[in-house]
Amino acid sequence: MQAALRLARRHLGRVWPNPSVGCILVKDGVVLGRGVTAPGGRPHGEPQALAQAGEAARGATVYVSLEPCNHHGKTPPCSEALIAAGVARIVVACEDPDPRVSGGGIRRLREAGIQVDVGLCAMDAMAVNAGFFSRILKGRPGVTLKLATSLDGRVATATGHSQWITGPDSRARGHLLRAHHDAILIGIGTALADDPELTCRLPGLAGANPVRVVLDSHLRLPLTAKLVRGAATIAPTWVVTLTGADSAKAAALDAAAVRVLRVDADKDGRLPVQGALTALAGQGITRLLVEGGPTVATAFLKAGVVDQVEWFRAPLLIGGDGLPAVGHLDVDLLAQALRLSPAGDVLNSHQILR
Amino acid sequence: MQAALRLARRHLGRVWPNPSVGCILVKDGVVLGRGVTAPGGRPHGEPQALAQAGEAARGATVYVSLEPCNHHGKTPPCSEALIAAGVARIVVACEDPDPRVSGGGIRRLREAGIQVDVGLCAMDAMAVNAGFFSRILKGRPGVTLKLATSLDGRVATATGHSQWITGPDSRARGHLLRAHHDAILIGIGTALADDPELTCRLPGLAGANPVRVVLDSHLRLPLTAKLVRGAATIAPTWVVTLTGADSAKAAALDAAAVRVLRVDADKDGRLPVQGALTALAGQGITRLLVEGGPTVATAFLKAGVVDQVEWFRAPLLIGGDGLPAVGHLDVDLLAQALRLSPAGDVLNSHQILR
Repeated sequence: MQAALRLARRHLGRVWPNPSVGCILVKDGVVLGRGVTAPGGRPHGEPQALAQAGEAARGATVYVSLEPCNHHGKTPPCSEALIAAGVARIVVACEDPDPRVSGGGIRRLREAGIQVDVGLCAMDAMAVNAGFFSRILKGRPGVTLKLATSLDGRVATATGHSQWITGPDSRARGHLLRAHHDAILIGIGTALADDPELTCRLPGLAGANPVRVVLDSHLRLPLTAKLVRGAATIAPTWVVTLTGADSAKAAALDAAAVRVLRVDADKDGRLPVQGALTALAGQGITRLLVEGGPTVATAFLKAGVVDQVEWFRAPLLIGGDGLPAVGHLDVDLLAQALRLSPAGDVLNSHQILR
Repeated sequence: MQAALRLARRHLGRVWPNPSVGCILVKDGVVLGRGVTAPGGRPHGEPQALAQAGEAARGATVYVSLEPCNHHGKTPPCSEALIAAGVARIVVACEDPDPRVSGGGIRRLREAGIQVDVGLCAMDAMAVNAGFFSRILKGRPGVTLKLATSLDGRVATATGHSQWITGPDSRARGHLLRAHHDAILIGIGTALADDPELTCRLPGLAGANPVRVVLDSHLRLPLTAKLVRGAATIAPTWVVTLTGADSAKAAALDAAAVRVLRVDADKDGRLPVQGALTALAGQGITRLLVEGGPTVATAFLKAGVVDQVEWFRAPLLIGGDGLPAVGHLDVDLLAQALRLSPAGDVLNSHQILR
């Protein structure tokens, strides 16, 4: 199952709106087939592993990191393919929370006389597809906040100097983070100040560009921005704006291949984080990387929607007059502070505890 | 030599104004004697190792982490004891920078016909006695700054709530840091706010209390403070104040066994960090742990006298309205920021690069 999970992790960021599912087919201690959800979400891992095994699949054991699907979508359900192949036993890491599946796949397989065991490495499997689980169960993508600061938590000096605050290793890992997310989000402030491309510039992963998302209440993103100019060719660009934003500007963005998503303002007339996330989940985004500046970081943290923090620290001390990475959180007592715990095997990864 | 250095490290913080020196005596692959500078600074490591070996020292090889002394102080010089014992060879990690020794010990031993090799593990030996080297060569103690902050570099919430910001492991390591320093320094602000004891409360090290030092320009430290009440019994307490500070208050502190050190004000009428450090070095302090609040931390960092930073991070995010651990450093460009590099095998230890 761990091998199936490793396969699944490889395609994170490239299979939305689907989960990334790994499948390993074994008979007499020999691996006969392997598969993982293909980029774009199809084909699933199971038919690929079955195709590799061919006739030898008969009587085999299948390890699959999520419950096989049971509904007729663009492809026939995996449950039927597994039954037709005559496998003897299926080990499933965890149930698919998608209401179209949700135990139905397992039931169908058992009805066909196959032994199905559920729950092996379930926690790991849920962690791998935390973004998909979040989209289905909470109606929002899983959110990773990326921070790059000095040791004292600053992103710039008092005069605003900030470029290359972390080194080449951190930048490479930052690009890998991009490749493993469905979308990257920034605020309009960062978009205007930096005119970024938000692409993955790692050798071998240059094509793995996530959707670029800009939070832009009043559609201030210029048509000359790199994000707009590359929307049709480099990677999709989406703008989340308020319901009432200028429709002429929206039409111009649309004509430039930028998708404009509209969200109702909150009671203060601002673009609500929760609303933006609901809109993104509605478009199928399961894993969102927030790379915005202090304003966006603070808004997401205050909204309580950050699941993971990737914190890159440059070995610098800037001092209390530098610009803090995170703005006011209105924490009075330490018990109210956000608590983070180390996550994964990388020092800068933290989970937010609730 | 590494074994000699391990011995030396054990007594750091307990041998000032002397360096902590480890000595291992070997013959035919067998260790015949071991010694390390005793608490209080005497006896040195060499006579202890020689005493353990007894007559067997004749013809042995001696590994010693600093050049043996050659001047008649409270004890006869180690050089003479080594010659008298008839050792064949002495391996010295590095020369003693003390002008009373500074190569004289090595010369004396060579004149007596002993083979002396210098420089094995020299960098490690200088690191172990960095505080002693700093006192002799720079006229100030080596300075370790301890910071305990949230992940975003805050020491308290906006309302000032801060207690127990780090956990029990960090506190234990904080007490171990105290035991390995000659003195702990805080500002009068922390002394008045917290009325701390600044003792080492680790099992087995409860007696290893360093000198407690308060920077107190105007002698505001009350006679009822724990630091004053315990000055005669628990651990020495010193106050560094301005030359012109109230002499009646100074006399009262003196009567309570508190040592009052006077330093000339700088041109702004303030107590200069450099002057305070010179005064402490004059009293023999080689390793100073700065545990003050943001004011003291900022003053030491701005004065450029921090050699090492021990940074304890609680897995919390307090936000930009919290109190920063380090105040304004007037850094405009990132190139001016203080650069830290990991030091030693503990994640929170950093050296300041110059």
